[in-house]
Amino acid sequence: MSTFGLIEYTDASDDDIMATRKTDYINNFWKAIAHDPALLKRTWEGLKAVMGPGALDPLTKELLYIAVSVTNNCNYCIASHTASAFSKGMTPEMFKELQQVVGMANATNKLVTGYQVSVDARYQPPLNLQK
Amino acid sequence: MSTFGLIEYTDASDDDIMATRKTDYINNFWKAIAHDPALLKRTWEGLKAVMGPGALDPLTKELLYIAVSVTNNCNYCIASHTASAFSKGMTPEMFKELQQVVGMANATNKLVTGYQVSVDARYQPPLNLQK
Amino acid sequence: MSTFGLIEYTDASDDDIMATRKTDYINNFWKAIAHDPALLKRTWEGLKAVMGPGALDPLTKELLYIAVSVTNNCNYCIASHTASAFSKGMTPEMFKELQQVVGMANATNKLVTGYQVSVDARYQPPLNLQK
Amino acid sequence: MSTFGLIEYTDASDDDIMATRKTDYINNFWKAIAHDPALLKRTWEGLKAVMGPGALDPLTKELLYIAVSVTNNCNYCIASHTASAFSKGMTPEMFKELQQVVGMANATNKLVTGYQVSVDARYQPPLNLQK
Amino acid sequence: MSTFGLIEYTDASDDDIMATRKTDYINNFWKAIAHDPALLKRTWEGLKAVMGPGALDPLTKELLYIAVSVTNNCNYCIASHTASAFSKGMTPEMFKELQQVVGMANATNKLVTGYQVSVDARYQPPLNLQK
Amino acid sequence: MSTFGLIEYTDASDDDIMATRKTDYINNFWKAIAHDPALLKRTWEGLKAVMGPGALDPLTKELLYIAVSVTNNCNYCIASHTASAFSKGMTPEMFKELQQVVGMANATNKLVTGYQVSVDARYQPPLNLQK
Repeated sequence: MSTFGLIEYTDASDDDIMATRKTDYINNFWKAIAHDPALLKRTWEGLKAVMGPGALDPLTKELLYIAVSVTNNCNYCIASHTASAFSKGMTPEMFKELQQVVGMANATNKLVTGYQVSVDARYQPPLNLQK
Repeated sequence: MSTFGLIEYTDASDDDIMATRKTDYINNFWKAIAHDPALLKRTWEGLKAVMGPGALDPLTKELLYIAVSVTNNCNYCIASHTASAFSKGMTPEMFKELQQVVGMANATNKLVTGYQVSVDARYQPPLNLQK
Repeated sequence: MSTFGLIEYTDASDDDIMATRKTDYINNFWKAIAHDPALLKRTWEGLKAVMGPGALDPLTKELLYIAVSVTNNCNYCIASHTASAFSKGMTPEMFKELQQVVGMANATNKLVTGYQVSVDARYQPPLNLQK
Repeated sequence: MSTFGLIEYTDASDDDIMATRKTDYINNFWKAIAHDPALLKRTWEGLKAVMGPGALDPLTKELLYIAVSVTNNCNYCIASHTASAFSKGMTPEMFKELQQVVGMANATNKLVTGYQVSVDARYQPPLNLQK
Repeated sequence: MSTFGLIEYTDASDDDIMATRKTDYINNFWKAIAHDPALLKRTWEGLKAVMGPGALDPLTKELLYIAVSVTNNCNYCIASHTASAFSKGMTPEMFKELQQVVGMANATNKLVTGYQVSVDARYQPPLNLQK
Repeated sequence: MSTFGLIEYTDASDDDIMATRKTDYINNFWKAIAHDPALLKRTWEGLKAVMGPGALDPLTKELLYIAVSVTNNCNYCIASHTASAFSKGMTPEMFKELQQVVGMANATNKLVTGYQVSVDARYQPPLNLQK
């Protein structure tokens, strides 16, 4: 369900999602934002460009998506991207290490903040990539 | 700088950080929390256990750390882990794709939330890993 | 439902909410915090002062409320203020543009943060309102 | 400054920003992400499409941008969009009401959450826009 | 500094802050929002009502303020409330335990979220305070 | 429920939780992360070390945990730690004051941020604990 309800696929104007993902299943997110075709188009094209293979492989990108979604506490996003990551090859062991990193990063983020730690001179941008 | 100031290494009780990282540089975070040796010990041991090689490689873990830190808006963490990721082999192109994923995930996290999209039945936990 | 349950209106000590809103419906938030009359009174008086007409009209203020609530991922707040905004004249088209802005702002907030962009000299406070 | 430094405009490949904004000033954000031309292009095109006039006017959209940026604690975004909003006609009185709404919304978001208030049946999506 | 600059005390309309706090120092927050006397008045009155002694003592309330401010990553708030807590009797050891709790809570918050753990039946609101 | 389902206690390898808490009830969080024994062990040992009596008493630590969890919008954590705090002696009046502080802190955090208030010189770290 969503604010305006869900538009089933036969009502939707865009099917590049199905073709690209090689699936006949469209998840609720797309059915929900299909009420705004401009948003649907821009979001899908952006996602397709960003999440494909590049310097980072698609599975690593899914792991990053989950890390962001957990930190943002977005339950829908966690559920759908966790499923997606498993379908792209994430093993249970990878899932567990991912959660460990996310938990640890959230802890140390707050320790740094609570102790008011200033950035070391050598980490100040711009980075010297030769260093 | 930090709330209690920084404890330079010769004052600190723990040097496994230097040995493990093969460096003589200790960054401000450790010098700041060195005022609480129990916290320093638990944090370092946790970080060492979590960030080493496993089902995910150390560089992927650094990328995840950055993704969390950006989402949490922790400037210190972003600066230090971006430097760390470059030292572990992150290329500029990988950095750019990482930022693209983080930006995209933050956008769609909020679209899902704003449209009040409910989780598809097939994504409800527990996951059927056979599917 | 809520931590202490909901206090129905006939039990509540305050009815300026009904009078101001010209409604006989009190939503769960007020019934939940009615367990703390001081909080109820301060919150309602604050909300009444803040959300009324002024330099910004009440509908714009509802849109801002939704933008904050989505960014904070507060499902109750999103549901109730989305309903409230529609009752104050938000059209579906306005809702859609609101979500687009919220999604875009969340994305660029994180790109700025991830790229560690420093504030341009001309944007540093205090603002020169003559500029 | 930024992770990779700033690319001055004469080095940048895109000048639709200047033309659209009727300015010869490019702010640091664009100079920072100019290291990733694909991101720059997608972000600019998205922003241009989203922030222009529509069902909501450009000033209202700037106010929403500020509300999100404050909630996300993005200092760069707050500084630049506050300046931008003033340039589009935000008065000091509008700024003040905006901050009041943002403060109030952040407070009640957390009261709702802390009291574990469940969504009223009538606010459950999908919304009945006739109601 | 702040968006509109700081209004020094001799320009401000409210001096109950000095009297209540038994100090002749007004911190920047109040000087910044003094541009909006209605906000200043409502905020100060709210803070005075909330932060005084009650079922929780003022120092515990300062600790809670810090915990929220660290989680929200509000540097100004962390700096000023950490100073305030020390002036109200927080010891360095209390500060350290506070940071440990904040770090731990942020970690487990995200582990719960990442593992998609549903609330135990016995913790569902409303709470049975007899249990 | 959780991503991998819940491991009932008779399957779990660690029972120090029951012994320390003097209970035969294990809540879902532990059953969920029991799929990762290393995480379970590290988390439990950390929590046990952090949440016990020290310079701050266990109830104060529960209040801090709730303050963080509300700010992070972690529903599971709010539900379980609210129950835990009541079991450790939190009264309804303490709960109410806690929520008031959390609401107020979230509001002023954002007012400070929105008004771009810079830190007073006297609050800059390191703190002079003699002052």
